[in-house]
Amino acid sequence: MKASTLKNTFINIRSNKLFELFVVTVIIFSALLVGAKTYDMSDTMVLITKFLDWFISAFFLTEITIRFFAEHKKRNFFKSFWNIFDTVIVIISLIPADDAEMAVIARLVRVFRVLRMISIIPELRILLVSLIKALPQLGYVMLLMFIIFYIYAAIGSTLFEEINPDLWGDITISLLTLFRVMTFEDWTDVMYETMEVYTYSWIFYLTFIFFTAFAFLNMVIGIVVGVMEQENAKARAEKMEEEGEPSLKDISKQISALQIQLDTFKKPE
Amino acid sequence: MKASTLKNTFINIRSNKLFELFVVTVIIFSALLVGAKTYDMSDTMVLITKFLDWFISAFFLTEITIRFFAEHKKRNFFKSFWNIFDTVIVIISLIPADDAEMAVIARLVRVFRVLRMISIIPELRILLVSLIKALPQLGYVMLLMFIIFYIYAAIGSTLFEEINPDLWGDITISLLTLFRVMTFEDWTDVMYETMEVYTYSWIFYLTFIFFTAFAFLNMVIGIVVGVMEQENAKARAEKMEEEGEPSLKDISKQISALQIQLDTFKKPE
Amino acid sequence: MKASTLKNTFINIRSNKLFELFVVTVIIFSALLVGAKTYDMSDTMVLITKFLDWFISAFFLTEITIRFFAEHKKRNFFKSFWNIFDTVIVIISLIPADDAEMAVIARLVRVFRVLRMISIIPELRILLVSLIKALPQLGYVMLLMFIIFYIYAAIGSTLFEEINPDLWGDITISLLTLFRVMTFEDWTDVMYETMEVYTYSWIFYLTFIFFTAFAFLNMVIGIVVGVMEQENAKARAEKMEEEGEPSLKDISKQISALQIQLDTFKKPE
Amino acid sequence: MKASTLKNTFINIRSNKLFELFVVTVIIFSALLVGAKTYDMSDTMVLITKFLDWFISAFFLTEITIRFFAEHKKRNFFKSFWNIFDTVIVIISLIPADDAEMAVIARLVRVFRVLRMISIIPELRILLVSLIKALPQLGYVMLLMFIIFYIYAAIGSTLFEEINPDLWGDITISLLTLFRVMTFEDWTDVMYETMEVYTYSWIFYLTFIFFTAFAFLNMVIGIVVGVMEQENAKARAEKMEEEGEPSLKDISKQISALQIQLDTFKKPE
Repeated sequence: MKASTLKNTFINIRSNKLFELFVVTVIIFSALLVGAKTYDMSDTMVLITKFLDWFISAFFLTEITIRFFAEHKKRNFFKSFWNIFDTVIVIISLIPADDAEMAVIARLVRVFRVLRMISIIPELRILLVSLIKALPQLGYVMLLMFIIFYIYAAIGSTLFEEINPDLWGDITISLLTLFRVMTFEDWTDVMYETMEVYTYSWIFYLTFIFFTAFAFLNMVIGIVVGVMEQENAKARAEKMEEEGEPSLKDISKQISALQIQLDTFKKPE
Repeated sequence: MKASTLKNTFINIRSNKLFELFVVTVIIFSALLVGAKTYDMSDTMVLITKFLDWFISAFFLTEITIRFFAEHKKRNFFKSFWNIFDTVIVIISLIPADDAEMAVIARLVRVFRVLRMISIIPELRILLVSLIKALPQLGYVMLLMFIIFYIYAAIGSTLFEEINPDLWGDITISLLTLFRVMTFEDWTDVMYETMEVYTYSWIFYLTFIFFTAFAFLNMVIGIVVGVMEQENAKARAEKMEEEGEPSLKDISKQISALQIQLDTFKKPE
Repeated sequence: MKASTLKNTFINIRSNKLFELFVVTVIIFSALLVGAKTYDMSDTMVLITKFLDWFISAFFLTEITIRFFAEHKKRNFFKSFWNIFDTVIVIISLIPADDAEMAVIARLVRVFRVLRMISIIPELRILLVSLIKALPQLGYVMLLMFIIFYIYAAIGSTLFEEINPDLWGDITISLLTLFRVMTFEDWTDVMYETMEVYTYSWIFYLTFIFFTAFAFLNMVIGIVVGVMEQENAKARAEKMEEEGEPSLKDISKQISALQIQLDTFKKPE
Repeated sequence: MKASTLKNTFINIRSNKLFELFVVTVIIFSALLVGAKTYDMSDTMVLITKFLDWFISAFFLTEITIRFFAEHKKRNFFKSFWNIFDTVIVIISLIPADDAEMAVIARLVRVFRVLRMISIIPELRILLVSLIKALPQLGYVMLLMFIIFYIYAAIGSTLFEEINPDLWGDITISLLTLFRVMTFEDWTDVMYETMEVYTYSWIFYLTFIFFTAFAFLNMVIGIVVGVMEQENAKARAEKMEEEGEPSLKDISKQISALQIQLDTFKKPE
């Protein structure tokens, strides 16, 4: 009986508009605190931010606990991705960080509290989910692109390793160099260097740029077409269902019915 | 009675084609003057531009006054965004600037007179309004992008601050550095510097580029799809209304009417 | 009588497949010659290219003459843009160039013979015409972009002139610098330089990048939507006309005719 | 009789799921080996990779042989592009490479084994085929772009050759420099250098950037529109055929039939 009353209290708190507003305020405040800590601060300020950090941690823990106990079935709580997301962020930021080395990690972990802004704003959650859903469509194009990168990186580190090991030392470094070439970032410096040894190495770069640009373009077009198709399908479905618009098939059936009606006419005569 | 005559005079002036043409000429001339003042000039020229400046200010003031008094209801004048826009630009450029420091500000303020080219050309006004209308659609994607930027900036200024305080000193500078990385402007220089301390910091840059590029791509696609939908809706509406094209529903109703007509046929027999 | 025979000969030559092929060959050859002349050549080679140049000039002149005399009405010849285009290119490259200074100009003029590749290939002519037709659609967006550029250039050359006159000396140089910033080419170098004097000048660059990127995006979307609309209109027109597909209006009229037919039925009874 | 049994054995092996899996594993392993060889290795490791190389070569040869003998008609084997593709890759990587010079070439050739990942994954094969099919659509735009490049390169190497022969020495180098300008890679450095001699040479670069950007934009739009049209045509065809949806023409015919039916009615009376 008592437990039930407590649960109701939790449910009331969770549904309370003021409480919701307060949660959002604390999340935004914790994000600002993350930013503030990157500035040089006096000792007093460091102490204050330390205290605020603990307050935010405690508050987030309380909020998660309330949401957990307000849930009817405890299992359902962990069925929601965003609940797990929030819980993990809150628990991780509870890890104490006393020694110097851990302090940096603890600060980094607290940065991820900013991610709670995504979990608290429904529109951002929807946006993120739809972004993630769009990824698998790109799977094979990205695999193809990786194969192109891999082949060029292997060729690059075979031929150019002795010219500049910093850029072509092994396949990992070469992949990074090729990514740089793809972003056109000082790619001519990379090219001119190898052209001094292999005069025709510009073919290597130009074909690489052409292949990746072309594959990238196709990826973009793929996404655009995919999105368009979804939109069109949605528009068609809306048009059909919501307005109660009949299809041409329905019209055809209606006329056929008319013909049958006319046939029954003839018979009595 | 006299006021009314004066008002009619104002209305006549405002509606006069020659006056309109003259206003456009003065605006273009004031834009050219703004450009001319950036060149080194002889003392005589400085005097002439000073005189021209005052002439333009006086003319713009007169024009606004005429437009104000030509308005039937004085309140409506300030209901138009473009009237307020013009008035503010004109009034601000009237501020006298005698001492050296103010002179620069006065010159800057007069630059904004060029903006009157937008308020005078209806097509540019429409274009600007439609650009501004397109902005809110992007709201949540831009918020998501800002959160990505903020988290990476916080991580960057925590980890890399001691490597290069000019780039990662605090969160504001880090945000600027990340914007630079997003535009691919010498981003490898930034990366190689931090890779000397943290070998795996390329993951930081590559994931950042991937996330922002992906979010940016979605923003662009969002705009394109939005524009397309508007166009489609417009096209559909035009097709339906202007050509008087019946919908399939109308056809269906017509056939139903036919069926009823046939039914009444049967009865008399 | 004799003139007429000569004209027929010209018409025959112009329509001859072999002659057409030979013209194309000479045009391609003249393009290759333009490229060859950029390499260092022996004196013998220089002499040969000089001879070839004169041969090509003479041939092009002959070809234009044949096409001119093969035309039924001489006026129509100059009504075609491409005929004027070819004639101008041919005549200009006839200008003798003996002294050193003129030699460079003469070489440059001959480069434009490569443009005859566009006039000779019908598909390229169509492509170029459609590209030029797409330009006016962009008129107002480009005007808006120019106004943005102009205002920022005026502000830039007012504030930053003393920091770096090479980049912000006057409004023309500032426009060039801003174009450079728009292409993200070493734009941070430009920014960091002014940030040393005006700490907040990053606002100048970021807003500029934002405005131009946004206007540019709208321009691209404008073109895409324009092209799409044309395609849709074409597709609709094709669907309607070629397949003889009736409109819903036609169907509606047919049913109305049926109803009238049914009405005439009733009357006799 | 015996040959037939052997053939059946080959067919059984080829169709065996485990064998297929093993082939994929070896291909992925050979790709990893290509990457591993770019790292510095101990002598033992070099020996191991050498052995693995020969094992992979032998395995690939065996696999191709099995696939060849499992084919009913030997001619058909070479009708498939992918079979030829695989055979060429396998045969080339069999070339022995003992001396130092050949060793590099042998290593490079083995890199292309990674391409077998494309031939083994059907989705990548389809993707590649559709990418290659999209190329000819771009033919004329790319030709136009090449003509623009060629003319600018000819002008560039005529005017700027003496300023910087490394960038404008002959037409090939100039084309490379112009490609660099198109990617906005340090293009202002190239421009400022020539502007010191020819003050107005910024016109050369700006018009070039404008033309190529415009042609490129049109190429992209061309691809997008092409893809859209294909999608629309496919969608229309699906709608028509799969759902058995009648066309408006069919409806019109049905109504005409009704009218004829009504006419036959009249006659008996």
